[in-house]
Amino acid sequence: MEDDNGGVGHGDVVDVYPLNRYYFGSKEAISKKDDDDLVDRIHRLKANYEVNGMRVCVEGVLLVELLGRPHVLLLQVKNSFFRLPGGRLRPGESVEGLKRKLSNKLSPIESTTSDNWQVGECIGMWWKSSFDTLPYPYLPRNGCRPKECIKLFLVRLPISRKFFVPKHMKLLAVPLFQIHDNCQTYGPVISGIPQMISKFSLNIIQG
Amino acid sequence: MEDDNGGVGHGDVVDVYPLNRYYFGSKEAISKKDDDDLVDRIHRLKANYEVNGMRVCVEGVLLVELLGRPHVLLLQVKNSFFRLPGGRLRPGESVEGLKRKLSNKLSPIESTTSDNWQVGECIGMWWKSSFDTLPYPYLPRNGCRPKECIKLFLVRLPISRKFFVPKHMKLLAVPLFQIHDNCQTYGPVISGIPQMISKFSLNIIQG
Repeated sequence: MEDDNGGVGHGDVVDVYPLNRYYFGSKEAISKKDDDDLVDRIHRLKANYEVNGMRVCVEGVLLVELLGRPHVLLLQVKNSFFRLPGGRLRPGESVEGLKRKLSNKLSPIESTTSDNWQVGECIGMWWKSSFDTLPYPYLPRNGCRPKECIKLFLVRLPISRKFFVPKHMKLLAVPLFQIHDNCQTYGPVISGIPQMISKFSLNIIQG
Repeated sequence: MEDDNGGVGHGDVVDVYPLNRYYFGSKEAISKKDDDDLVDRIHRLKANYEVNGMRVCVEGVLLVELLGRPHVLLLQVKNSFFRLPGGRLRPGESVEGLKRKLSNKLSPIESTTSDNWQVGECIGMWWKSSFDTLPYPYLPRNGCRPKECIKLFLVRLPISRKFFVPKHMKLLAVPLFQIHDNCQTYGPVISGIPQMISKFSLNIIQG
């Protein structure tokens, strides 16, 4: 792709619409898994691994504009940690399951599971070599048997829509410059989003 | 893409061949620009910006296998800082200029500029808002006029080849786990490579 910008292409363009075009409401919480303590959680992960093999999670990166800057929509659970909308795929489920997960976290309760989510490119894969380690953006070593894979996808938002978020969560728009290189607050996966989407040209539409 | 891996596709596969399949030699240095001191360099960058507008640099990420792990080929300049092979595009030059730069840094002197380099996908773009700041993996703000854009491309290596590196540089194979999250040693761009290539499945071929 050639253009007038020093002879170098812009890459894929992603439209980013203003935050004020979106409506944010809340709904009853569905899952109680966030109440697990760490020991319960690792017990559950091990039992699932024995039956189903590697856990596969899919997560969506949704971008909005605020003050002329790109922001990522993050869920904050019980005023504590941050996560991307998404979750674990069912055994044998394809990445289409991300649409089910996005609806689960972000759509009104009565909506269908597909709900017109525009799930785009895979932008990164992160791997856990054991049940209680941080994920890394590469396989720890050749031939190892990872316990979990987290796949991130860029989700194109329409120019306007309504979000309904489970009551024990908040949906926040966080600027890229705040999450960049901020593993301590957001964890390794979210703080790596700016690098993972840096190949895209963001077409920031101001509100 | 579907496979037997928990119903989730592997993404694009990149073959990574053993380091011992490659030959490393040296050649006379060509450019003296690395001798610039910081003041001279910023003076030169400003003068070039006045004439040609935003500086565009293209850099190649080349992967090899060592001890079963993926490594990135990095140039170390005079036992000091690290850089990726690549450099500034000429005004109006397309990303094809990366092949010229790769030959300049990595091929025998007598080789032609094209030299069969397999330049693949753009994996990331980094931006400098002024002449003396660190690059960021996003545009600082909407409507700003960046001074430099650094575009990274994944370069597929053949199963074997010879590299010839300018005498004042060394070509090193550095494991992904060493550069990951190590901005202090490698700078923000190189230390972000694991995230930028995490969407690819590396097919590690052991030596």
